[in-house]
Amino acid sequence: MRDVSIIGIGQTPVGEHWDRSLRHLAYDALAAAMKDANIEWADALYVGNMLSGEISGQAHLGPLIADFAGLRGIEAVKVEAACASAAAALRQAYIGVASGLQDIVIALGVEKMTDDVGSQLTAGLASAADADYEVIHGITFVALNALIMQRYMYQYQLKREDFAGFAINAHANGAGNPNAMFQQPIRKEDFIRSHMVADPIGLLDASPMADGAAAVILCPTEQARDFTENAIRIKASAVATDSLSVHDRRDPLWLQAAEDSARKAYRQAGVGPQDIDFFELHDAFTVMSALSLEASGFAERGKGTWLARDGEICLEGRIPITTRGGLKARGHPVGATGLYQVVEAVQQLRGEAGPNQVANARLGMTQNIGGSGATIITHIFERLDL
Amino acid sequence: MRDVSIIGIGQTPVGEHWDRSLRHLAYDALAAAMKDANIEWADALYVGNMLSGEISGQAHLGPLIADFAGLRGIEAVKVEAACASAAAALRQAYIGVASGLQDIVIALGVEKMTDDVGSQLTAGLASAADADYEVIHGITFVALNALIMQRYMYQYQLKREDFAGFAINAHANGAGNPNAMFQQPIRKEDFIRSHMVADPIGLLDASPMADGAAAVILCPTEQARDFTENAIRIKASAVATDSLSVHDRRDPLWLQAAEDSARKAYRQAGVGPQDIDFFELHDAFTVMSALSLEASGFAERGKGTWLARDGEICLEGRIPITTRGGLKARGHPVGATGLYQVVEAVQQLRGEAGPNQVANARLGMTQNIGGSGATIITHIFERLDL
Repeated sequence: MRDVSIIGIGQTPVGEHWDRSLRHLAYDALAAAMKDANIEWADALYVGNMLSGEISGQAHLGPLIADFAGLRGIEAVKVEAACASAAAALRQAYIGVASGLQDIVIALGVEKMTDDVGSQLTAGLASAADADYEVIHGITFVALNALIMQRYMYQYQLKREDFAGFAINAHANGAGNPNAMFQQPIRKEDFIRSHMVADPIGLLDASPMADGAAAVILCPTEQARDFTENAIRIKASAVATDSLSVHDRRDPLWLQAAEDSARKAYRQAGVGPQDIDFFELHDAFTVMSALSLEASGFAERGKGTWLARDGEICLEGRIPITTRGGLKARGHPVGATGLYQVVEAVQQLRGEAGPNQVANARLGMTQNIGGSGATIITHIFERLDL
Repeated sequence: MRDVSIIGIGQTPVGEHWDRSLRHLAYDALAAAMKDANIEWADALYVGNMLSGEISGQAHLGPLIADFAGLRGIEAVKVEAACASAAAALRQAYIGVASGLQDIVIALGVEKMTDDVGSQLTAGLASAADADYEVIHGITFVALNALIMQRYMYQYQLKREDFAGFAINAHANGAGNPNAMFQQPIRKEDFIRSHMVADPIGLLDASPMADGAAAVILCPTEQARDFTENAIRIKASAVATDSLSVHDRRDPLWLQAAEDSARKAYRQAGVGPQDIDFFELHDAFTVMSALSLEASGFAERGKGTWLARDGEICLEGRIPITTRGGLKARGHPVGATGLYQVVEAVQQLRGEAGPNQVANARLGMTQNIGGSGATIITHIFERLDL
């Protein structure tokens, strides 16, 4: 098995791209990554996407995007794991290079959510949950997360505003990221006064729907210096799953798949949570930030919000999270999000994060979550000094 | 890179399963394969599926099916390449085992086409083609193939009935397969008189929509004897792609991706078409059988139908195809089809194909096609005498 590194990254700004179709967004990110890696060809393309069939009437993105990007003929396939689709694409790209079958591999995430001609978006997002046992009762995806947050607040005696720190931190960091959908800071009063979406989830608890694409280029670490001076090593890659139905889990307030995938990742990397310099977590809703921090070993059970309250998640804190805005402020183009996290982790480790730079970042972790915790994919990245 | 073998197979009958949901069908095939391999756990599950989001409002099949089959927690993800989704799942499973990262891996294909509550099936199938440049003009998937067949008949001076042999052979073999959707033989007169679907494609040129699931279990060849005496080795695994738009190809009558993936597969296996004992090809429409035979090296350009005319594709012929009914008679549950082909190839190589047995079969080939030739995945399998 070969060691694998990232030699190129690319992304589009996140937002409402009325003038760019799905294939154009994909091309923009892919071409930028190929230019960054200084390559003109690849052995394989793995596309992460969740909703192109429902929203754009377009399946079969592998060959579509390969062809449009000038890579006609290469091995290309789509990978889907709801909101974790992009990290799932990276996972398959990683395995392809590690296996020795493929040398230069592209992992791309793309989602075009604004082309919702058939008004399928709410139903499409709900398809990440269990259609036969959850969605059939009329629940939406945000409502499902609202039930989790209700229970969390009840169990740990918290108020809505205890979650404010996650959104405030995300927006503060988004202000420094030119690719973020929202670049304006928010105050605690804004959070408290924000419109209710599904009680207790307010507008500023929830990440926005968006269009976007992000891509990375992988190759064997031993070949990385042929392409770049600032390769970033994939030190761990781990996937775990759980029941799709939240009611079917042993504990709806514990992300078992986060614990499992983080544990596997720490073991592969030979590190623990105390060694991680920053953590790009999946803050689709503020409560998910708390759950992710707890199950991944950064906070005790029920104390995830304490890290936000105490400023530990800020750039200078003990464990900086959502350093470039996270899902909340950078935006959440669902099937692309996992690779935005990775692109941002690479920027941090290269020292290219501008005003959001985490000082002396050597080890970064990303965690992409599908379906309120049914798929959780954790990666750890390390700066290589070649 | 490790050598990989198949140690278990499972399938459901193909047909209209009004009493079984998507997860039940998946479970049936998966449980049968696990029983056949004598295993109770696996390291990973790759699910091939095309339309669950559109038809059943259910994405995120990886964890859903893993959990339902008693495998909660394992790495599980969906892979999509239109009608080639199941072979794409096998491809990823193969890479997972070859890499050394995963030992026991399940590749599963499942499609539930009859639960079409929103009448999305015709649009869903068309999403295999180019939404922006083909489907927007109102073309359906069968109409697209009808254009290809029209052109083929014009170019090579053929009549509709010249394609009859493919359907007659498929139905003759389907009669011997208890899992086939159609088990009655047809005559040339039936073919000629069959209702027109999209001129020149008649009902008996076209494979039927269906429900079904098929699964295989992989492990490193060196461990295969711990599980079974009749392991089947994956001697080659190859993917190639082409433009999604048919009009954008250099030649609409040449499956470039079939030529490319077959060439790669032959090279990996160190064999040529003359060494293949049977070929499970993708006969979604009769014209695709001709094109596949030509591009894969079994017939000269424009002479694919001659093999059918001369009986060369029958069980005793030079290159038996669709030996258990093919897409035409066994049925075409789109995202599962590629693994039905593989399950049937394994049956042949084990000598378990009953009345459809190809005598002395040692080397079998499968070819799964997505989107009229945009994704083509070729595998070659070999009987291991352990």
